[in-house]
Amino acid sequence: MEQKIQLTVDAVVFGYDAGDISVLLVKRKYEPFKDAWALPGGFVLEHESLERAVERELSEETGVRINYLEQLYTFGEPGRDPRGRVISIAYFGLVKPNAFKLQAATDAQKAEWFPIKELPKLAFDHKIIFDTALKRLQGKITYEPLGFELLDKKFPFSDLEKLYATLLDREIDRRNFKKKITSLKVLDELNEKVSIGPGRPASLFSFNRKRYFQLKKEGIIFEI
Amino acid sequence: MEQKIQLTVDAVVFGYDAGDISVLLVKRKYEPFKDAWALPGGFVLEHESLERAVERELSEETGVRINYLEQLYTFGEPGRDPRGRVISIAYFGLVKPNAFKLQAATDAQKAEWFPIKELPKLAFDHKIIFDTALKRLQGKITYEPLGFELLDKKFPFSDLEKLYATLLDREIDRRNFKKKITSLKVLDELNEKVSIGPGRPASLFSFNRKRYFQLKKEGIIFEI
Repeated sequence: MEQKIQLTVDAVVFGYDAGDISVLLVKRKYEPFKDAWALPGGFVLEHESLERAVERELSEETGVRINYLEQLYTFGEPGRDPRGRVISIAYFGLVKPNAFKLQAATDAQKAEWFPIKELPKLAFDHKIIFDTALKRLQGKITYEPLGFELLDKKFPFSDLEKLYATLLDREIDRRNFKKKITSLKVLDELNEKVSIGPGRPASLFSFNRKRYFQLKKEGIIFEI
Repeated sequence: MEQKIQLTVDAVVFGYDAGDISVLLVKRKYEPFKDAWALPGGFVLEHESLERAVERELSEETGVRINYLEQLYTFGEPGRDPRGRVISIAYFGLVKPNAFKLQAATDAQKAEWFPIKELPKLAFDHKIIFDTALKRLQGKITYEPLGFELLDKKFPFSDLEKLYATLLDREIDRRNFKKKITSLKVLDELNEKVSIGPGRPASLFSFNRKRYFQLKKEGIIFEI
């Protein structure tokens, strides 16, 4: 079987920090698309798993080590890569950006977080991959709880609300949202308060770890 | 870039007919796994899209021509294929089996529908691919309406109920189900009745085409 097809992996790593959502990009060191921004990624080695390949490429090009990327979609249109037929399996994840120190190497001359509304022009079909990942992330919110790794250990309810509003990129109905989150029983109200702004001090919450991961496994039905 | 990786596509085609759910398999003509049953599929050609590849393989091996398969997942564990590193992009779909005449050719010596509870031992990691597809299909029910292509043009409500119960492989709460379907406004009640069994004649329904495809696009939230 003579098949001139090559295989890459690409990572769409979203970062969430206090109301800002960004994505991790690298500036390419080599042709094609030399000096253009792109998603971190590269060729799969013959003896490594796809997950290992994407974690390795991400770590090599950006210094970011994460091992909980999820498979997004496989992009394989003929012509998507000027080097020939290259098919890319894309992965995505959502992290707290300041948990990582960026360090570009190998095929990348620079690694940087970009606010998702201020993306530079991306190499290859990476804009399509990015759009697909964002849509999937927004969809995920409706069937999985979110925020455990992104918010502080103790947080006012408004932080969770801000997370959902940011990811969905729209206002959410506060009362309805609170009712739904409460019905999931995923938060523990702590016996502590914090002052944010001029109003009354706000209660602090923490995720109920057991319940959170149970819901993550079982799935939720969550219309915001 | 020296990369000895080959690329295949595989199709999980489910068939639904009046309470029975089956999957389309082929008996392999050549090694590896000669004479074993497997999902239809094969190598991607250099200049064809992935969708075109899976439709071509499906049609060549089984005679079934469909052009609305959806990408499921990419399976790439080293060792999943004894011929070397072979990565497979799997697709899935759900059809009415008797709309097709099966005809095996090329790499397949036989093509057959198997009830999903009576599967033979499958080649490669195809049982894992099958399980993944079934789980995805069951998940899909909760965010997309279903049945337009599977039920008769006019059908009693019990046919739709049976479809959902069959796919979910469990009893469903009839009253609750009816209430939810009604709230989606996806069915038109016709001015016709049909006698099924000893009780009163049952009303016939048809899908409201416009509303159905609108919901398919927008998504539904549907907990059964």
